[in-house]
Amino acid sequence: MGRKFVIVGLGLIGGSMALALKGFEDYEIIGVARRQATVDYANSHGVGDKATLDLASILPEADVTMLCMDPDGIVAFLKEHRDHFKPGSLVTDVCGVKTAIMKGAEVLPEGVDFIGCHPMAGTEFSGVEHAFLEMFQGSHLILTPRKDSTREHVALMEALAEHIGCRDVVKTTPERHDQILAYTSQMMHVIAVSVCDDPELFACKGYEGSSFRGCTRVAALDAKLWTQLFSLNTPALTACLDELIGHLQSYREVIAAGDRQALLRKLTVSSDRKRQVDLPGPDLLN
Amino acid sequence: MGRKFVIVGLGLIGGSMALALKGFEDYEIIGVARRQATVDYANSHGVGDKATLDLASILPEADVTMLCMDPDGIVAFLKEHRDHFKPGSLVTDVCGVKTAIMKGAEVLPEGVDFIGCHPMAGTEFSGVEHAFLEMFQGSHLILTPRKDSTREHVALMEALAEHIGCRDVVKTTPERHDQILAYTSQMMHVIAVSVCDDPELFACKGYEGSSFRGCTRVAALDAKLWTQLFSLNTPALTACLDELIGHLQSYREVIAAGDRQALLRKLTVSSDRKRQVDLPGPDLLN
Repeated sequence: MGRKFVIVGLGLIGGSMALALKGFEDYEIIGVARRQATVDYANSHGVGDKATLDLASILPEADVTMLCMDPDGIVAFLKEHRDHFKPGSLVTDVCGVKTAIMKGAEVLPEGVDFIGCHPMAGTEFSGVEHAFLEMFQGSHLILTPRKDSTREHVALMEALAEHIGCRDVVKTTPERHDQILAYTSQMMHVIAVSVCDDPELFACKGYEGSSFRGCTRVAALDAKLWTQLFSLNTPALTACLDELIGHLQSYREVIAAGDRQALLRKLTVSSDRKRQVDLPGPDLLN
Repeated sequence: MGRKFVIVGLGLIGGSMALALKGFEDYEIIGVARRQATVDYANSHGVGDKATLDLASILPEADVTMLCMDPDGIVAFLKEHRDHFKPGSLVTDVCGVKTAIMKGAEVLPEGVDFIGCHPMAGTEFSGVEHAFLEMFQGSHLILTPRKDSTREHVALMEALAEHIGCRDVVKTTPERHDQILAYTSQMMHVIAVSVCDDPELFACKGYEGSSFRGCTRVAALDAKLWTQLFSLNTPALTACLDELIGHLQSYREVIAAGDRQALLRKLTVSSDRKRQVDLPGPDLLN
């Protein structure tokens, strides 16, 4: 009989994970949801090998448990179910903050391993009906193992990354994860919602191109989830925003001053930095 | 014998236009460049029906002349060649500011029409070698006709938009164009370069997802071109930046204050605005 891989929470990410993990080694991929409608959708659309409401029966049998709720939900779940995980099993998650999650996982008893996990993928939509198989194709998977995480469990997560199509695996500390993600992810969401707060938003249809659609795409975010993510990473995020506001202000001053030479020098430096870092944008032809 | 459609400037946009316009009505699509290498590339890659260095011979024969240089170049060209355009012909452009261009076009003699044109398309690259046929597929085409532009010339530009695959044609005044484009386009570029000025830029590889790549894509801009575009639209752009900085500051304050309820309310309002305006982002599956 195969091993059991239990995904708790069949939303956008959990659902996509259940789709992408099918056929992973000898694991049976079992989704656990709280609503019957989600279970029915998952079972009728092949989201995982099976889906159930019955957490109590399945959790003690899980060789791997992947928590796909929002951060508050994960921390609460770890606390409530600390004694229900199978001894020797691995618990992991998919959440966009890691320090708070790793701290929450300290409640686990000895012998239950925890490796923080953050697949750098997502869309602006929520819910299992927006889940899709290719979600993780070409994405980075970030891992924050504990000091005592077993080599076998780290190797398991690396094999998982390969199975779901990730480009690479990056291992780091929870603190460093949260610091850099404040910049690469959370700040992008603050920018997107701030742009959408402009009174011109509803007048701009017909005048927008790919740069506007690209920048504002993620503004249609899950407000409850992102409230938690921002709130669990406040010092790093506010530092990033201060840095950004400073750079914007600096561009604003040189534009307002009408000094073309200074503006050209500034744009040359910034655009050279971008070319040097060489992160391709989304393909505009599709 | 067919009519002549002359494209002056075979860069990214002019080159793509020359590719996309082939077969448009009975026009022969003739590209004019300043460098032999550009002419050779265009002739060997089918960029237009033919390309030439010989502006002096071709300009007086052009039924339509489309100016695809940077804004300063367009204004200088109109002044220098005001008496070389064919009487009764149409002159147009593809530039991202319109007030300065329409003012520059006031030098044209009576009987030479001018319609400002801005196809809302582009990439972060420059030069004819990055031109491609599908550039304008699904884009808006913005027109700023003069008060005395002929009905036939406006209809011609609308037929052109359809031929190159634009989604729709939007007609407006140069002033309104510049005001709204400060928001939808120029500000997106200031955001992108400002994000890239962050000291963390080079540390972020491996930690970036589609929101970061989408927001910063256009930072690899043509510094000379965007210096001109920003400088020719200073009041509108600085007003937009002040608005943005205010909204960012407001998010920064509520995040720093740790008031989750206030943050949730704010994110709910912004994300609802974004869902309401309903501008789909680039397809992430490709």
